[in-house]
Amino acid sequence: MGNPGEKQSIAPSSSVGRVVIDEIRHAPVLGLIVFVPVVILLERIFPDRHTLLFLASVVAIVPLAALLSRATEAVAAKTGDAVGGLLNATLGNLTELVISLAALQAGQYLLVKASLAGAIVTNTLFMLGGSFLLGGLKHHVQEFNRVNARFQACLLFLATIAVLVPSLISEVDQPPALDVSQKLSLGLAILLIAVYALGMLFSLRTHRELFASVSHAEEDEKLWPLGLSIAILVVVTLLVALVSEIFVGSVQAAAEHLGMTPAFVGFIVVALVGAAAEMTTAFSAARANRLDLSIGIALGSAAQIALFVAPVLVLVSYFIGPEPMTLQFWQGAVTMMIVATLAATLLSNGGRGAWYAGVMALALYAIFAFTLFVLPPTNPS
Amino acid sequence: MGNPGEKQSIAPSSSVGRVVIDEIRHAPVLGLIVFVPVVILLERIFPDRHTLLFLASVVAIVPLAALLSRATEAVAAKTGDAVGGLLNATLGNLTELVISLAALQAGQYLLVKASLAGAIVTNTLFMLGGSFLLGGLKHHVQEFNRVNARFQACLLFLATIAVLVPSLISEVDQPPALDVSQKLSLGLAILLIAVYALGMLFSLRTHRELFASVSHAEEDEKLWPLGLSIAILVVVTLLVALVSEIFVGSVQAAAEHLGMTPAFVGFIVVALVGAAAEMTTAFSAARANRLDLSIGIALGSAAQIALFVAPVLVLVSYFIGPEPMTLQFWQGAVTMMIVATLAATLLSNGGRGAWYAGVMALALYAIFAFTLFVLPPTNPS
Amino acid sequence: MGNPGEKQSIAPSSSVGRVVIDEIRHAPVLGLIVFVPVVILLERIFPDRHTLLFLASVVAIVPLAALLSRATEAVAAKTGDAVGGLLNATLGNLTELVISLAALQAGQYLLVKASLAGAIVTNTLFMLGGSFLLGGLKHHVQEFNRVNARFQACLLFLATIAVLVPSLISEVDQPPALDVSQKLSLGLAILLIAVYALGMLFSLRTHRELFASVSHAEEDEKLWPLGLSIAILVVVTLLVALVSEIFVGSVQAAAEHLGMTPAFVGFIVVALVGAAAEMTTAFSAARANRLDLSIGIALGSAAQIALFVAPVLVLVSYFIGPEPMTLQFWQGAVTMMIVATLAATLLSNGGRGAWYAGVMALALYAIFAFTLFVLPPTNPS
Repeated sequence: MGNPGEKQSIAPSSSVGRVVIDEIRHAPVLGLIVFVPVVILLERIFPDRHTLLFLASVVAIVPLAALLSRATEAVAAKTGDAVGGLLNATLGNLTELVISLAALQAGQYLLVKASLAGAIVTNTLFMLGGSFLLGGLKHHVQEFNRVNARFQACLLFLATIAVLVPSLISEVDQPPALDVSQKLSLGLAILLIAVYALGMLFSLRTHRELFASVSHAEEDEKLWPLGLSIAILVVVTLLVALVSEIFVGSVQAAAEHLGMTPAFVGFIVVALVGAAAEMTTAFSAARANRLDLSIGIALGSAAQIALFVAPVLVLVSYFIGPEPMTLQFWQGAVTMMIVATLAATLLSNGGRGAWYAGVMALALYAIFAFTLFVLPPTNPS
Repeated sequence: MGNPGEKQSIAPSSSVGRVVIDEIRHAPVLGLIVFVPVVILLERIFPDRHTLLFLASVVAIVPLAALLSRATEAVAAKTGDAVGGLLNATLGNLTELVISLAALQAGQYLLVKASLAGAIVTNTLFMLGGSFLLGGLKHHVQEFNRVNARFQACLLFLATIAVLVPSLISEVDQPPALDVSQKLSLGLAILLIAVYALGMLFSLRTHRELFASVSHAEEDEKLWPLGLSIAILVVVTLLVALVSEIFVGSVQAAAEHLGMTPAFVGFIVVALVGAAAEMTTAFSAARANRLDLSIGIALGSAAQIALFVAPVLVLVSYFIGPEPMTLQFWQGAVTMMIVATLAATLLSNGGRGAWYAGVMALALYAIFAFTLFVLPPTNPS
Repeated sequence: MGNPGEKQSIAPSSSVGRVVIDEIRHAPVLGLIVFVPVVILLERIFPDRHTLLFLASVVAIVPLAALLSRATEAVAAKTGDAVGGLLNATLGNLTELVISLAALQAGQYLLVKASLAGAIVTNTLFMLGGSFLLGGLKHHVQEFNRVNARFQACLLFLATIAVLVPSLISEVDQPPALDVSQKLSLGLAILLIAVYALGMLFSLRTHRELFASVSHAEEDEKLWPLGLSIAILVVVTLLVALVSEIFVGSVQAAAEHLGMTPAFVGFIVVALVGAAAEMTTAFSAARANRLDLSIGIALGSAAQIALFVAPVLVLVSYFIGPEPMTLQFWQGAVTMMIVATLAATLLSNGGRGAWYAGVMALALYAIFAFTLFVLPPTNPS
């Protein structure tokens, strides 16, 4: 499998531009790439039209995220399983990471934390729920590898709890001094990254056979050549960084104008935008009756954010932010993450999917979104 | 099956009164029906003997709930599976609904919320625990359809969480303004009813084969003719409404006199009374080694209250209450509902029941009841 | 099996001293027994060297706990299954009980509660995680009796919730008056002991075949003769009581000197010391591919503390403490116990163990320990 695809894509004269045009024909969402120059131009001409810049940058990030995701996969596939898996696992949430870095640099910690919590909730409820629903509308009952789903859910549960413990423990007594909280967050960030590294050792080396069905299924697409992929990876990451900066600069004013708080924007809008590319993959996998793959992407991506992206941002905040960021979330976010994780655990526990499982997950997501919209958190930390 | 029963009950000259007397012979609990005229008379003669009226109305509701439950089943069975299932699912908690409506009209929102939370906890712990215990004392180990139990528990978990999210999110920051809270509750109520309607579509239409064992088992009793059933349904509902009004009018003064708070009365007493009829069915099913049916009634009924009865009361409160009711519960109730749901999930997860599972569930219920009795909530909202 | 071992140990001229020396050869940890006279002497000579006394008493308790554990097992094995199981189940956490009694008598209720909560968390995360890790490093994937593990996890979950309900319900409104809280705790303690007694009836009498693999595996060691075992049981219990008194008397000053709060000492240090003996058994069972036994010891011991040791301490506090102890824990402890229990449930649910499951449990434990160290609870109740 993949032979005709490889022939097509390994054409020696292929250039970044040509591949991009070629891809757009197959995936119309990539056509939105024209918004990238548009948003950069707009920002020069109308630096104060925040709502316009916000909307344009949201639209521009979607095709960039899709390209990033494809390029990462291609590089991962070419460099052999161990390094490739490592790359895939590490760069899988590159879009979220770059957006968060832009927000971090601007000192918008509430936006950073909202987008982290939102990405976890969106992946576990919206992506998983959408996969169950779309897959279930086509197939009556879908069986999936329960052992694998359970492992992913277990990892996600522990990862979520790990991120949340400081919030849970500290909320209950008087809030700790900021320096104590920073010290705690730094130690936990290092611990979480170590757990993540061991998790990769486990899933890519010592027990890779347990994760077989997921990684196998992903090889099914045609892949770009290595040099091109790396070029795309670098160029697109820079573009995401550029657009993210515009996005972060406009989000606060735009959100106010549209009647949304930064928390709502981070939790729902950024999370949906950042995960757009992975969602496309998860949803089409579900319709192709490969629910294993959908669940792996949804829960694996959520776990990665909790175990890798969040701790990395804490470490990086020591160098680029106005002050070190902590791992303390506001308690509503804590509640939503735990509930989402428990729901994912319950839904993936049975080894069978049907459309109503999707309805339940999406309803929970709608409840969260609606609650956040009507009742924004007031705690600005 | 059911042929001799039908012959007996389709006698053309049968009247409401005759059927009632006939039923009493088989189910002695129906003899308590004499308390219905007694309580109505008592209320005319001694309108201020609150404790007497309270006790008499509690006793009078039990046989009415039993009749209501039988009549609903009979109408459901006669009108074909789709409409019947719809009716059964919608009217299954009619007693709770009517009592709550009476409390709603009197503006006793704490009583309404306590009885909703109490019904969920009572169904998941007391009814499930009693079924495990009574079934387990007769049968060493009881196997049950794990897939079905897991689906019911999953639905209940999501339903409970859904009702609780506003409470969970809003408790943590400063309490929101009342109008924000009402807006949120209205939106969530509509969403929950939509999820409930889709759940009926799922279980009665698209995936009814998954729920086969439960609905099949229920057809096992002799049923009343359709016209009679509808007559009983209407008459008994009116009687429940009458008695409920007396109950609600006397409960506050009586509770004080008996040393109980309205919260305790709503959580424990009303919940036990309202679920008395279903409990009889669940317990005898457990002793007949049909634990599937017991679990279906217990968890299904709890889910119905969270997904249907509570949202309907929110909507109705816009028309009959002094002001719109919200979905915000006091935090102790939230905790008890979540714990009860998790316990039910764990106990029904294994697919096997034994008497000690019942002891554990009942002990948890006793802990809740005792705690509420000794330490009543002080939050009057 | 065990024949050569029995021959060796049933030598008629054996005395307590000789057996002890014999054992030390096989289990070097018992060599630490020399610290018992050392710590008693030290306390006479330097009653104010708190840090020295603290460290010496911690070291002295480890071998005593190991001896106590062996003696209990031996007595249990000799007295027949029913009485033996009862003894084993009742005296299994004798070390924790004696240490807690010493702390209770000194009125150090925070230390008592921290060590109870810490023992539950240490058994469920550290002992279970260590077993998964050590077993998994030797065996690729370990299968275990899922039904049994699930039952133990279920019992533990309900036990933990039971202990926590008063804390959960009372935290949310204003704290109740002390006498109300004491009344509640007394009632719950009696209820929990009754549930525990019924649990023994269930696992030792009516459904003992469900627990077969665990009790069978434990008979595998060589056992001491009955008279000797009882003598050791009595003597060592007295020694533990003596050393515990020194430990409790020195812990507060020593902890301050070492930069730790009593809560951290109770939660981590006392819990690890008290469970040292059981840990040795659980870890070597895991390496011998008997993960059933490891899980049984870890979760069973945690459940015993919640269902038996904690309630007994409440009852005893009416006689020996300065005032009755309540079952109210500070909320951070509540959170950690619930999270630990949920993690244990998830990890033991699949019926398969691998080294990374151990890493996850140990990471969670490290997070708790680090958080407690950096951010001690301020609530002194």
